[in-house]
Amino acid sequence: MERLKVFLEESDMPRQWYNIQADLPTPMKPPLHPGTGQPIKAEDLAPVFPMNLIEQEVSAQRWIDIPEPVLEKYFLYRPTPLQRAVNFEKLLDAPVKIYYKYEGASPPGSHKPNTSIPQAYYNKAFGIKRLATETGAGQWGSALSMACQMFGLECRVYMVRVSFDQKPYRRLMMATWGAECIPSPSDRTQAGRKILAEFPDSPGSLGIAISEAIEDAVGDPDARYSLGSVLNHVLLHQTIIGLEAKKQMDKIGIYPDVVLGCAGGGSNFAGISLPYVCDKIHGKQVQVVAAEPSSCPTLTRGPFAYDFGDTAMTTPLLPMHTLGHDFVPEPIHAGGLRYHGMAPIVSHLVEQKLVEARAFDQIETFTAGINWARTEGVIPAPETNHVIAAVVNEAKKAREEGKEKTILFCFSGHGLVDLAAYDAFLSGKLIPYALPEEEIQRALKSIAGFPKP
Amino acid sequence: MERLKVFLEESDMPRQWYNIQADLPTPMKPPLHPGTGQPIKAEDLAPVFPMNLIEQEVSAQRWIDIPEPVLEKYFLYRPTPLQRAVNFEKLLDAPVKIYYKYEGASPPGSHKPNTSIPQAYYNKAFGIKRLATETGAGQWGSALSMACQMFGLECRVYMVRVSFDQKPYRRLMMATWGAECIPSPSDRTQAGRKILAEFPDSPGSLGIAISEAIEDAVGDPDARYSLGSVLNHVLLHQTIIGLEAKKQMDKIGIYPDVVLGCAGGGSNFAGISLPYVCDKIHGKQVQVVAAEPSSCPTLTRGPFAYDFGDTAMTTPLLPMHTLGHDFVPEPIHAGGLRYHGMAPIVSHLVEQKLVEARAFDQIETFTAGINWARTEGVIPAPETNHVIAAVVNEAKKAREEGKEKTILFCFSGHGLVDLAAYDAFLSGKLIPYALPEEEIQRALKSIAGFPKP
Repeated sequence: MERLKVFLEESDMPRQWYNIQADLPTPMKPPLHPGTGQPIKAEDLAPVFPMNLIEQEVSAQRWIDIPEPVLEKYFLYRPTPLQRAVNFEKLLDAPVKIYYKYEGASPPGSHKPNTSIPQAYYNKAFGIKRLATETGAGQWGSALSMACQMFGLECRVYMVRVSFDQKPYRRLMMATWGAECIPSPSDRTQAGRKILAEFPDSPGSLGIAISEAIEDAVGDPDARYSLGSVLNHVLLHQTIIGLEAKKQMDKIGIYPDVVLGCAGGGSNFAGISLPYVCDKIHGKQVQVVAAEPSSCPTLTRGPFAYDFGDTAMTTPLLPMHTLGHDFVPEPIHAGGLRYHGMAPIVSHLVEQKLVEARAFDQIETFTAGINWARTEGVIPAPETNHVIAAVVNEAKKAREEGKEKTILFCFSGHGLVDLAAYDAFLSGKLIPYALPEEEIQRALKSIAGFPKP
Repeated sequence: MERLKVFLEESDMPRQWYNIQADLPTPMKPPLHPGTGQPIKAEDLAPVFPMNLIEQEVSAQRWIDIPEPVLEKYFLYRPTPLQRAVNFEKLLDAPVKIYYKYEGASPPGSHKPNTSIPQAYYNKAFGIKRLATETGAGQWGSALSMACQMFGLECRVYMVRVSFDQKPYRRLMMATWGAECIPSPSDRTQAGRKILAEFPDSPGSLGIAISEAIEDAVGDPDARYSLGSVLNHVLLHQTIIGLEAKKQMDKIGIYPDVVLGCAGGGSNFAGISLPYVCDKIHGKQVQVVAAEPSSCPTLTRGPFAYDFGDTAMTTPLLPMHTLGHDFVPEPIHAGGLRYHGMAPIVSHLVEQKLVEARAFDQIETFTAGINWARTEGVIPAPETNHVIAAVVNEAKKAREEGKEKTILFCFSGHGLVDLAAYDAFLSGKLIPYALPEEEIQRALKSIAGFPKP
């Protein structure tokens, strides 16, 4: 029997995160202050993030030590296994070996604690007492709730009202970990009250929830804001995934031909791929692919431009692939991939042709996910189904080209609390959806006057 | 930093299950035919189970090989990690080291696939085309659905109506794995139709669902029945848990003073403990403790007697601790522990004083579970909370006695699809519940005329 599973001993777990800024052939464009149009300064961000995380955000140091208290919490679920998907390979009947890094065994079921744990730690170390954040589907909110509880921080999560009502399990997770979960829009903030005055029955949006969380944090000197994707320091923390995977593949003497991840804000994709992009920069042959939904095709159809990270235009202007900050994606069932923008690092790598992007329709992704569950067991999160669809696509190409290929991908999380989406698919309620071009053009008008990167 | 996590390489995973029948100082009493009062014969069971599993049920062979196709599927989530709960230890502030075997990372989130996979395999090997089973909370039904899908068997699950309506996530899991899930009582069987004629709005019960599944299987020569706990062969398959744990503890040179598991039908408890009971039989010092709910105190308050395994009296008479086959437990939130009987093997070991049993109230168990989630991360299944309460109890005793103790327990599953129970607890809707003695005496009347073991 071939080796199906590779563990890493605790003592072999990487002790540093990898910062790709140190290796970029062309440096990234800076975020801009929306008022002045000038590069943002560290002190501009001080009311929002603690200074130790701001330092990580702008650091150019290649390796950054993982603090001992963070390692201790990582050990609750890390190192995660690297697994070979032989049963799925048989189904695909293509000349491919498929390895995946399984991030679904963490307490909330996804890769999110890889950054919620260090973020809670650094905030605590900086003397912060409370974190505020927003959550859409609830994966990020639950991961941050757990981390705050472990480091003795209070946690307040603004959850998009429609998800709060439809996804009771996620908010119950947050409550179990001791966080306060508030449906957004709420009467706790000016931003929320303003919306409620106009639309008392507003279902909320991620944009509104972000505005509420930032306003909440900025208004309390003991509180800061926390974000679960997009930013450089978030992607940095996630590199633990790819660094572990490299060590595990080294153990069995294998190097992948293709590395893939699904991309919403970009954090799990960057987590698995940045250490390989580093190799690629240094001359190694490896293909790196980001999979996104065709209903929110940020990388494949959005331009690289300066744009706000939120709908309410309270963040700095970020250089990224964007569909425009007032883009409203269709209500597809992969909440974690419904974001108008993309991490500046990932966007930059796509611009530099170090990363390729592909978009997949929800029918393709659920078909891939169901086939996965029926062969490999674990029911994937709807987000994860996108990378599985991309793997199916790679296998098909390998079969057509008659070329053997070793595939590595990040299995970002399980779907046990997202089963309503599977229900919709199995009962035929999901339909193929191609985003009309005029929809994108309309949304992009919102960034027409912004500086160009 | 002390070693927090011990993995086992694939190549070190045990290749055989352990059968305690070979080591029992006093042999077990046989199951009886309810009609004749004589020991049941293999052929009596043939319409219900395939002959290869019946052979395992009655086998006295110490070690039984795990077939290669079963090993291959085990590798999807096994070997499971052995972990040290340092954060929970700190909270307890007692002289204990706590190790746990984490069974929550399997695809359906519990230890159940350890037996659903071999059961599906052996049925397939015997030429069976379809399995019928019942499920209460849904853990067993989902685990069997997955295994049947993997071996190309059809699967029909009779799910207690009230759970079918209240726990949509479990039945969606079954649908995703391709099984047919039918609310019970149903119009598919005589047993179901009889109940429906009398009580059209019946919420169902495990007893009714078992009767429906057996009737369904027995009426179709291509189908058999499958049970997720209680029987000898089920406990045999679960010994993979304890066998792995022993190897892992050997790796770090540690032997436990106490081994614990929660017990409903007895399968996960037996899984972790039988290999240690074997040591105990051969003279080793080790305490073995089963934790059960005080609302369904089979081992602590039920007599050892011959009784039916189901309410409808269709099974053989089993020698076991029982509260009487028409005992109706309070609707506590640990569905997997609401069974009137107990595995004959576990019952026998309690009789032989090789195993101790303790009962815990739901308030104690949820308090323990929340404290676990807030220190160790994973939110435990309500069933698992019972063993955590027992661990807290052991730690308290160690502190009082000023005695150092090494604890090992089986973490049977996570609670991500059981969060409604946490909601009830956190919002103060759960109350302490002591089962009145007359309730037990009343239920025990149903077995008054049966043979005595």
